[in-house]
Amino acid sequence: MYSFKNDYSEGAHPEILKALTETNLIQAEGYGEDRFSIEAASLIREACAAPDIDIHFVAGGTMANLVALSSFLRPHEAVISTLAGHIYVHETGAIEATGHKVLPVDSPDGKIRPAQVTAVLEEHHFEHMVKPKLVYISQPTENGTLYSKGEMTALRGLCDEEDLFLYVDGARLGSALASEANDISLPDLKRLSDAFYIGGTKNGALLGEALVICTDSLKKDFRYMLKQKGAMMAKGRVTAIQFLSLFKEDLYVKLGFHANRMAGKLQDRIVQLGYDVQFSSSTNQIFPVFPESVIQALERKFDFYRWCKYDAERWVVRLICSWATMDEHVNAFVDELKRLG
Amino acid sequence: MYSFKNDYSEGAHPEILKALTETNLIQAEGYGEDRFSIEAASLIREACAAPDIDIHFVAGGTMANLVALSSFLRPHEAVISTLAGHIYVHETGAIEATGHKVLPVDSPDGKIRPAQVTAVLEEHHFEHMVKPKLVYISQPTENGTLYSKGEMTALRGLCDEEDLFLYVDGARLGSALASEANDISLPDLKRLSDAFYIGGTKNGALLGEALVICTDSLKKDFRYMLKQKGAMMAKGRVTAIQFLSLFKEDLYVKLGFHANRMAGKLQDRIVQLGYDVQFSSSTNQIFPVFPESVIQALERKFDFYRWCKYDAERWVVRLICSWATMDEHVNAFVDELKRLG
Amino acid sequence: MYSFKNDYSEGAHPEILKALTETNLIQAEGYGEDRFSIEAASLIREACAAPDIDIHFVAGGTMANLVALSSFLRPHEAVISTLAGHIYVHETGAIEATGHKVLPVDSPDGKIRPAQVTAVLEEHHFEHMVKPKLVYISQPTENGTLYSKGEMTALRGLCDEEDLFLYVDGARLGSALASEANDISLPDLKRLSDAFYIGGTKNGALLGEALVICTDSLKKDFRYMLKQKGAMMAKGRVTAIQFLSLFKEDLYVKLGFHANRMAGKLQDRIVQLGYDVQFSSSTNQIFPVFPESVIQALERKFDFYRWCKYDAERWVVRLICSWATMDEHVNAFVDELKRLG
Amino acid sequence: MYSFKNDYSEGAHPEILKALTETNLIQAEGYGEDRFSIEAASLIREACAAPDIDIHFVAGGTMANLVALSSFLRPHEAVISTLAGHIYVHETGAIEATGHKVLPVDSPDGKIRPAQVTAVLEEHHFEHMVKPKLVYISQPTENGTLYSKGEMTALRGLCDEEDLFLYVDGARLGSALASEANDISLPDLKRLSDAFYIGGTKNGALLGEALVICTDSLKKDFRYMLKQKGAMMAKGRVTAIQFLSLFKEDLYVKLGFHANRMAGKLQDRIVQLGYDVQFSSSTNQIFPVFPESVIQALERKFDFYRWCKYDAERWVVRLICSWATMDEHVNAFVDELKRLG
Repeated sequence: MYSFKNDYSEGAHPEILKALTETNLIQAEGYGEDRFSIEAASLIREACAAPDIDIHFVAGGTMANLVALSSFLRPHEAVISTLAGHIYVHETGAIEATGHKVLPVDSPDGKIRPAQVTAVLEEHHFEHMVKPKLVYISQPTENGTLYSKGEMTALRGLCDEEDLFLYVDGARLGSALASEANDISLPDLKRLSDAFYIGGTKNGALLGEALVICTDSLKKDFRYMLKQKGAMMAKGRVTAIQFLSLFKEDLYVKLGFHANRMAGKLQDRIVQLGYDVQFSSSTNQIFPVFPESVIQALERKFDFYRWCKYDAERWVVRLICSWATMDEHVNAFVDELKRLG
Repeated sequence: MYSFKNDYSEGAHPEILKALTETNLIQAEGYGEDRFSIEAASLIREACAAPDIDIHFVAGGTMANLVALSSFLRPHEAVISTLAGHIYVHETGAIEATGHKVLPVDSPDGKIRPAQVTAVLEEHHFEHMVKPKLVYISQPTENGTLYSKGEMTALRGLCDEEDLFLYVDGARLGSALASEANDISLPDLKRLSDAFYIGGTKNGALLGEALVICTDSLKKDFRYMLKQKGAMMAKGRVTAIQFLSLFKEDLYVKLGFHANRMAGKLQDRIVQLGYDVQFSSSTNQIFPVFPESVIQALERKFDFYRWCKYDAERWVVRLICSWATMDEHVNAFVDELKRLG
Repeated sequence: MYSFKNDYSEGAHPEILKALTETNLIQAEGYGEDRFSIEAASLIREACAAPDIDIHFVAGGTMANLVALSSFLRPHEAVISTLAGHIYVHETGAIEATGHKVLPVDSPDGKIRPAQVTAVLEEHHFEHMVKPKLVYISQPTENGTLYSKGEMTALRGLCDEEDLFLYVDGARLGSALASEANDISLPDLKRLSDAFYIGGTKNGALLGEALVICTDSLKKDFRYMLKQKGAMMAKGRVTAIQFLSLFKEDLYVKLGFHANRMAGKLQDRIVQLGYDVQFSSSTNQIFPVFPESVIQALERKFDFYRWCKYDAERWVVRLICSWATMDEHVNAFVDELKRLG
Repeated sequence: MYSFKNDYSEGAHPEILKALTETNLIQAEGYGEDRFSIEAASLIREACAAPDIDIHFVAGGTMANLVALSSFLRPHEAVISTLAGHIYVHETGAIEATGHKVLPVDSPDGKIRPAQVTAVLEEHHFEHMVKPKLVYISQPTENGTLYSKGEMTALRGLCDEEDLFLYVDGARLGSALASEANDISLPDLKRLSDAFYIGGTKNGALLGEALVICTDSLKKDFRYMLKQKGAMMAKGRVTAIQFLSLFKEDLYVKLGFHANRMAGKLQDRIVQLGYDVQFSSSTNQIFPVFPESVIQALERKFDFYRWCKYDAERWVVRLICSWATMDEHVNAFVDELKRLG
């Protein structure tokens, strides 16, 4: 049974394990003040072309989001997210648990438009309602789509006008950066957002996300926040060494590229076999449409998510490829699909 | 420069790295529902002789404490801790950040006595004050001392009478379990506490603590709490595989034993050289007393903490040994001390 | 300029002021443990035909809601409300500020249907999402409509099946109880809900709401919660004496009846003059539809809310009558409307 | 049975009831935006000689403290208070419930010294500990003592140096302002603190405290915080009208003066009868020392608190006088004491 359910089914990319092994007995400071953390941060600053950003490594995406947002916002300030935004629906109310309302907007393709933000602002006009203060977006989105540089620039413009923060959840940023459809680089992200995180867990790391704080006013005392929320790891080296591997010789983008290529190949073959896709994806998540009978047959050999009903007889399913997906896995799926056809 | 500052200066015990490497490409479910998590929990249940305990793996100790306590307590309920308790002083108000007051009691040796708990209960007698509900202790304590089975049994008895929870922070539980002075086994801990955690980070793991919930009423919906606080790792396998290694063939206790043996040897030699110790320790932390001039000389070659002033001319310092400390490190320290004598 | 904006534009009903004055120099215990609080609670128990309910007096409705919900729920548990629910939209995220997500359902008439609750439960099926635990409804609703006994019984049935709490915001409960369209009595409310509050501020009191806790498991330590949230008043007598007046000789329902009668008269006349109403109301809020030009003319002499756009040329406005509204106020409005017609 | 237990045993000063009655049927805006709130704020600004302060009326002292402190502090920031500070011990963890640790310092006379603040700052030196950010003091203190202008100026100086806020709980500020021993005026308080509240509940109001925010950076969006915490009253007029009465013709200080005079007389007579006092008080709380037998006899006719044990045979008791205490009450107590002597 091979799983296309997600991009965190395996351990770490071998380069990462190798780096962990090679450095294993070197003593290092605790709590992110070690040489590896400093060096990894330095590589990320370089990749962002930004000597002045702050970098903090945390264990997971929910943690990155909750520490950042609870640090950036005053108690009455709220977050704008899509209805499908990870923080709105799939983090067990982590943001609300830190006291902040998340205001949802609907978006079939997972992207927030400036007009939607404006509408939320107009609706929330006085002190009996929360004050929208931060726009939360994901790149790629939960639907596998990508913001274009034009779209993100428009959001940034509105945020500047309205004194809002723009925060980017980059759980699968590797896939975005490596996508042929993408025109937003790390330096662009640095310039257009107040903070974002570079996801490691879903792109080859054992665990770990690099939270990047771009805006000076948000940097102060952030390590206090990390410690208070349980996000500061005693062996900060563990995430740092992994990001060192990922940002040396561009491994981070290469892994994203591989995952995208596998997903693209899978999508192409599926389409060639006559099936629809919900969106034509250029990232590592694809959303083909299969009849119930085909799905039941596939489920005997492969693991994947049923995403949503498409029509009376068909479902959209989600297939994810990763740095660890190999041609043979893609081929096996396609062969099975052919056999069923 | 060798560091005796802590027991998390290196990566992981080689057995653990090996296990991570060997399992690396095996696909597994996410979020702690994988085969490794199930098997590791099973080994811990066996070690605790308790088929009915719940086990959850989290990334660090502050996280273990804050998820557990915020899950166990209603909003007005408070925690009793020593003034030196990790949650009271060194977690940046993590427990208060979840809404709960921590009520301190003073204890020179780091242990809470039943009479101190009773005094807190008597003082907090009505609804204008928080309601003490959970006693937080550490085994070993922050001072490196150990609760005896008699002492913990007495606390448990009081907690039963007064309807309090007893929670044990086991950041260095490996050292406690392996100590010759210890008479509290894992099955005892299971029987005497409502919940405790088995610390991995400070006993050979890259990261990870195993939180054990013993009391049925505290088990419900705990995974919701994990997710909400950012403590549920996508690759739950990472901590689970490490605990598998630690609880197979008793590695966990063996590592504690090694660390204790190194610390004991260091303590013996230091005492033989005519120096005092603040406490005679039987765990992996020792607290010798050195004059300022000796400390300054040692600091040129070794890293360690100045713990507190002892008298006008002397300090207590803290030296910690770990699974990675070798005879040569101990010898080098003792040789230097001799040279200075 | 007469205001139909709300039912809290004046001070208190004269009977209440009289009672405050007459008791003024009687010494009483603080913090709700005085004779007046005990007697007022007793009257409310009688009115609910429930000797076993707990009654707590608080200063306002947002306070009642936030103390109750934060006391009743564990951290991962969430509330279901309509999109127009006061807690969802008009309390500045008070519930989220205590850590709990509010899950909205859409309802044009302000009422939640069991099928909507079921849909939310089905969607929130695992620990990556909050756990819906409490259904929040208002009687009358924010739209001035009323739940029937059948409707509330159906909700109660579902809540029992699904282990949910049912909480009723009774900010304008006086108007509901006094409405000719109403078939839910206080004993019904006691039987059908886990907790509710009887609104005083909008029905003749200077301030104050009586929070009624029906379900035994929710009663424990509630006074701790009141104190912690700043809701326990030193002079608990102040709200208690007002509720004594309101529940002696049925003043509470009489004031609701008067407000409804004034609103009903106003609605009738408006309809007679040929204007539409959005809903035909039987409580003290009415929702007539006027063209922009009429509204602008009315606004010169009366204060009221523009509720929402009705069509290109018309708005729904909200007019509220209270215990203090007199025939002359209603007549003046109707006369002005005639004059404009 | 006459009660000297506290200064909130009666309703309101008759002038206040009169004002509430006279204004009762005047319609006013809700939520503190009415003419009375504006005028009362204006009177307080005048009394503070400060046209630029913000004034918010809330229902009680715990509420004032928790809204202010949770608005002023970031999540990792902590409060310094005495062990006897109302927020530390008698508000059921209200500040911790908003996420902030309260760091206690010991003080026999209820006052914090700059050196104590400095010691806390030195101890809390890095991000594993909370960051002290606000010094909470009470004027008069919980022990009935008063800060001198010199003492408060010294604290202010330190707060300026260390970038701390200074907040003053003025639950009994009327008694302080009216005390012959006091040299801190309202304009001084405005100048020396970042925020403070003027207590109404304990000085003649039915309920209500006026929170004064002096520092510009703390003013922003404060009404959002009020609403979110349930502190914004629909009939804001109710507290405003009371403060109008209190600040017209200096009633606020006059009531404090009366209470102090009654307490002073009681203290003098008690001392004349040969009893000790714990502190010689110049406010409306006195702390005489009586033997157990005398206390038991007094308790048959009067209500008051046993404050603490004094020695084997004697207790300190607390007697409080208020605006409502009359000569006859004082005389009755003294007569009884004489009879017992």
